[in-house]
Amino acid sequence: MRAVDLIRKKRDAGEHSREEINFLVSGFTRGEIPDYQMSAWLMATWIRGLSRAEIAALTEAMLHSGEMVSFPELPGKKVDKHSTGGVGDKTSLILAPIVAAGGLNVPMISGRGLGHTGGTLDKLESIPGFNTVLSLTDFRLVLRECGMALIGQTAEIAPADKKIYALRDVTSTVENVGLICASIMSKKLAEGIDALVLDVKTGSGAFMQREEDSVLLAELMVETGQLMGKKTVALITDMDQPLGRFAGHSHEVIESLEVLKSRGAADLRELSIELSAWMFYLGERTKSLDEGRLLAQKLLASGEALKKFRQGVSLQGGDARVVDDYAILPQAENRTEVKSTARGFLAATNCMEFGVALAMLGGGREQKEDKIDPGVGLEFHKRIGDCVAVGDTLVTIHYNADSKLAEAKQLIAESFRIADQQPPAKKLIRRLVGT
Amino acid sequence: MRAVDLIRKKRDAGEHSREEINFLVSGFTRGEIPDYQMSAWLMATWIRGLSRAEIAALTEAMLHSGEMVSFPELPGKKVDKHSTGGVGDKTSLILAPIVAAGGLNVPMISGRGLGHTGGTLDKLESIPGFNTVLSLTDFRLVLRECGMALIGQTAEIAPADKKIYALRDVTSTVENVGLICASIMSKKLAEGIDALVLDVKTGSGAFMQREEDSVLLAELMVETGQLMGKKTVALITDMDQPLGRFAGHSHEVIESLEVLKSRGAADLRELSIELSAWMFYLGERTKSLDEGRLLAQKLLASGEALKKFRQGVSLQGGDARVVDDYAILPQAENRTEVKSTARGFLAATNCMEFGVALAMLGGGREQKEDKIDPGVGLEFHKRIGDCVAVGDTLVTIHYNADSKLAEAKQLIAESFRIADQQPPAKKLIRRLVGT
Repeated sequence: MRAVDLIRKKRDAGEHSREEINFLVSGFTRGEIPDYQMSAWLMATWIRGLSRAEIAALTEAMLHSGEMVSFPELPGKKVDKHSTGGVGDKTSLILAPIVAAGGLNVPMISGRGLGHTGGTLDKLESIPGFNTVLSLTDFRLVLRECGMALIGQTAEIAPADKKIYALRDVTSTVENVGLICASIMSKKLAEGIDALVLDVKTGSGAFMQREEDSVLLAELMVETGQLMGKKTVALITDMDQPLGRFAGHSHEVIESLEVLKSRGAADLRELSIELSAWMFYLGERTKSLDEGRLLAQKLLASGEALKKFRQGVSLQGGDARVVDDYAILPQAENRTEVKSTARGFLAATNCMEFGVALAMLGGGREQKEDKIDPGVGLEFHKRIGDCVAVGDTLVTIHYNADSKLAEAKQLIAESFRIADQQPPAKKLIRRLVGT
Repeated sequence: MRAVDLIRKKRDAGEHSREEINFLVSGFTRGEIPDYQMSAWLMATWIRGLSRAEIAALTEAMLHSGEMVSFPELPGKKVDKHSTGGVGDKTSLILAPIVAAGGLNVPMISGRGLGHTGGTLDKLESIPGFNTVLSLTDFRLVLRECGMALIGQTAEIAPADKKIYALRDVTSTVENVGLICASIMSKKLAEGIDALVLDVKTGSGAFMQREEDSVLLAELMVETGQLMGKKTVALITDMDQPLGRFAGHSHEVIESLEVLKSRGAADLRELSIELSAWMFYLGERTKSLDEGRLLAQKLLASGEALKKFRQGVSLQGGDARVVDDYAILPQAENRTEVKSTARGFLAATNCMEFGVALAMLGGGREQKEDKIDPGVGLEFHKRIGDCVAVGDTLVTIHYNADSKLAEAKQLIAESFRIADQQPPAKKLIRRLVGT
């Protein structure tokens, strides 16, 4: 078998066998197939697409490129959630303690933010001392101790994905449902979980802006998960506006703590409970989804989820006093407001631009190597459908350096669409895929 | 401008501006754009195609990546011919001395054989001492002295092409008319010529097997040449069977000498005269094409073309006694015959396979680094349309090593199709593009 022939096959819209996919992935991971051949194959694949069988084979090949974790020592089921990313999406920080407090195990391997999206790891690291770089041994210990552990991708897990993703990023071959599915699922399936709940975002702040694309990606991921023997569902959820009222690292930790204290934004609370309920149900902790919702609400109301958060932060080296004292978190020094110049109703937002503006101010990465300023943040005062008067504050910007402030401010201002008519209400949870 | 954005543009079937093409080609040539980005762009380009404006811009960018030769010291016009390659195509060895003997200059920069095709340089190097690696200074001296010089691509000429071609070869992005056109024309336009005659092969032994593809490539090349101010025509010529009776390096030198001695195969003679006539006409040596044909015939009959060949070989360090003593050339030690097992008429050949079989026996390259055995060759005894009896010899194989002989023999035997009906005669010169 030769890489050049497999590139030709995909270029000509052929379908690869499992052996061919294995040859490409293992050869590339071992460095026998050079970057330039893999990138030609990735471009051919981006344009010609992958069949469902190819996606399954690619996911498995990437999964088997590294170690697969398993936790035979843990009594309860292992469940996880993965979100395709958006602006203000901090549900992991809320549902991990809820689900762990409920008695299941949440071995969560998360990512970092890139472009307009935030990353769970970056948010956690705004807590002084919090260490997301645990060895697999320490990961296992923390998990056994408190039922939840949140770390970054390790070198042992799906190294093929790490190498392929780096190449996709610089060759414009990221946004392809087959490649995205294999990338996400190979990492998640390596976690040794029994069940997986996927939160596939759709709308102006999501990678997939059209709902049909989000549904296709959700279907592919659910199918792949189920094929590999994992209980898998996907919720298609709204990303036409930020989730919750805050974006930015310290701010999102605070907002998550507010929800864990039974306060906080309604949409964020609703989605966190819904995702937790699915984790309880698929993890066989509850007999029904409704029972799962009730359990999640109970664990919030009783403070048990908050207690679990405190324990998790401590075990990963973080300063758990953050739960009671938000001032421990880095805060931006300055604030300024973006005000409405029109009156009417907030009809739509170009939500991705909020993430871009945040990154511009230092609260996100443009390049993988960029440092993040965790204190920078955006506070959103209006939701879609809200009435807006001239001079109303739309966004409060929390910033430090002002070199790009004017540009960011303009970008934010231009991302709101105010209309005369109130837009029809849209559901936060649009659809369910996989049951 | 960023390479990743240009890759995305082509991926999405966009059309590049001249500046964008320049950015890609010059950045890649200087090593600022890495191989893996260029190969992703090449694949996107292979699949999405290039507009005529993009092809012109790409050709120019590649041309300007290196030096352009010019010959202000030479009195006569400078003309060249380029063939897209096939089996047994040795016209360069014949027409260069004809045209030089006629008073024009032929500064010919040729290629080496790869895969099923032979290369002019390799053929010339079967003459003991013949040096195809001349500096531009020596190239100029030889050309001034005798009106012809045949060398390989130098580092100074179109370095972008050399680098891009190496990548195309290993990423299955070779067979695309736009990329082929830019590759050929950038090198030919760097030669400082006034006119160019293209021999675009079509049929089972050509890169472009379908005549419409050959015509499209011819049109693109002619248009590009004319855009750059060069008189350019293309002949679409038959490659459904080998040109002449021999393939293999020493054998093709001998067959070329036979034509220069007014003997040799009729088809090879016909095409050599036709191409020479076009070179005379475009080079303004004759007032008409017919006059050009007569001049070529006269230069063959008078022995002046043969004399020019002798002079050219001498000036490039070769043993000119080869003209009178073919035994100077390397010869294979053994011979065997492929005989017909059917009776009827030779209806078709899978001509490319003859080239593949020859390479298998050492008379061609599978990899760029392979050494060539110049003595190995194939002698074809039947032409399409000929009557064939059981036991008739179809091919005599001249070989040295017999490790792959059985495989090559079978490939050759299977490449002949004998039918009951005599096939309709096909023209050697199918079409003319560009006038």
